[in-house]
Amino acid sequence: MTQLTLYTFRACPYAHRVEIALAEVGAEFKRFEIDLANKPEWYALKVNPAGKVPTLAYGGPDVPPDEPSPGSVKIPESLVLLQLIPELFPHASTLIPSDPIVLAQARLFIESFSNTFVPAYIALLFRGDADGEDRLKAAMDSVIQTRREHGKRYAVSNEFTIADAAVLPFIARAEVLFGGDFGNAEAPRGSRLIAETKADPKYQPFWEYFELLKERESFKATWWPDAILETARRMFAK
Amino acid sequence: MTQLTLYTFRACPYAHRVEIALAEVGAEFKRFEIDLANKPEWYALKVNPAGKVPTLAYGGPDVPPDEPSPGSVKIPESLVLLQLIPELFPHASTLIPSDPIVLAQARLFIESFSNTFVPAYIALLFRGDADGEDRLKAAMDSVIQTRREHGKRYAVSNEFTIADAAVLPFIARAEVLFGGDFGNAEAPRGSRLIAETKADPKYQPFWEYFELLKERESFKATWWPDAILETARRMFAK
Ligand SMILES: N[C@@H](CCC(=O)N[C@@H](CS)C(=O)NCC(=O)O)C(=O)O
Ligand SMILES: N[C@@H](CCC(=O)N[C@@H](CS)C(=O)NCC(=O)O)C(=O)O
Repeated sequence: MTQLTLYTFRACPYAHRVEIALAEVGAEFKRFEIDLANKPEWYALKVNPAGKVPTLAYGGPDVPPDEPSPGSVKIPESLVLLQLIPELFPHASTLIPSDPIVLAQARLFIESFSNTFVPAYIALLFRGDADGEDRLKAAMDSVIQTRREHGKRYAVSNEFTIADAAVLPFIARAEVLFGGDFGNAEAPRGSRLIAETKADPKYQPFWEYFELLKERESFKATWWPDAILETARRMFAK
Repeated sequence: MTQLTLYTFRACPYAHRVEIALAEVGAEFKRFEIDLANKPEWYALKVNPAGKVPTLAYGGPDVPPDEPSPGSVKIPESLVLLQLIPELFPHASTLIPSDPIVLAQARLFIESFSNTFVPAYIALLFRGDADGEDRLKAAMDSVIQTRREHGKRYAVSNEFTIADAAVLPFIARAEVLFGGDFGNAEAPRGSRLIAETKADPKYQPFWEYFELLKERESFKATWWPDAILETARRMFAK
């Protein structure tokens, strides 16, 4: 068996995408937490020069994760890993739709979410931008519209695919972080946004989609809200 | 045979990626030029609401391209199409590496080029930004470094892959447009950049890589410098 080591951080939504993919395919791998507030020096030198998680070390000798070998291939970038993992374990999951057109639609869904929801989430959480709520609502609406067009159980398919795995970590964090008024938007902007959209029939299909995603075993096995809240408390020093 | 119609524009580097992919797999398809300076009204209504090329119409009845059918699936985004086309024609090309790790490396190469060369090209061409030359040189250097690490004929493989097809349209346009001092950087900034990097041994491996890519039949069959220069003359009204 080729060795797999995931350098990760429980609060990181990008890393969470890859944790979900590994759980979906049932891969055996070593998990190694990188404390982003206190990164070990070897990490940028030997694993990822950009110093970011997630990064996968693939192959090479079976070494302790904190003594990475030059013999393994190091692969960063959550969206690259989200596609690589099911390609390494073909037929082990439904992540990659077998119909190329549905796969293209999954990639378009991810591209759209990455250009709407993700930057709006960052704008509201880290900068408290005045238009953060409107942008997040527009992004929720775009998720609703795309699902409606496709008319399937999940984002683009009746099966759970990379499209769902890519968005779930961000939606889950939006709920707990904005819901708890964490971040740099003054309270109660975050909690009001969550409460309002949950009460508004217009956004029902968005939250229903999230409820469906939360049932996924790969989510339950990789969801550590305590770690997320602890990181948020440290970052935003409420 | 499923019908394929590509909405395209000869000067557009994004559309060029898809033209190369279609040539590589030897697909039969209808080409339809959208004049971006004078878009037909039906295009945004019936093909791509964002009004951009490239967009592929896949399947549905065999209609004239300027009377698109709601029965075809419309797929935008050059990088989505660049992956879709070889997936629709498996084994017809070397575009998708069979080793998933090499495929991940191709995607990382594209991601890096999209975050360095492409924005630097836009910054220098359309805005004439003062740091445009430095950013383009840094991006060239990054291409050189990645190829050196992999030690293969093309970007990440001894075969021509999506990594090469994604970057070639931009490098080719940089050469003719900057070389001819088109754009909003004052002459002779563009032509000096091209001449200097071609004369500097440091950038030799970059231009050698480009020479190799230019030999590709799929490039020769889809390279219309006259259309590019004509569009540039119109845009920049020298
Ligand atoms: N584009 C990257 C982004 C990864 C990223 O930004 N990760 C953050 C944590 S969520 C990180 O490692 N930041 C480095 C740091 O905080 O020093 C991906 O999709 O994987
Ligand atoms: N992200 C898109 C970008 C496509 C794009 O920007 N195409 C330009 C032409 S090069 C376009 O159609 N612009 C619309 C316009 O000029 O109105 C892709 O990769 O396909």
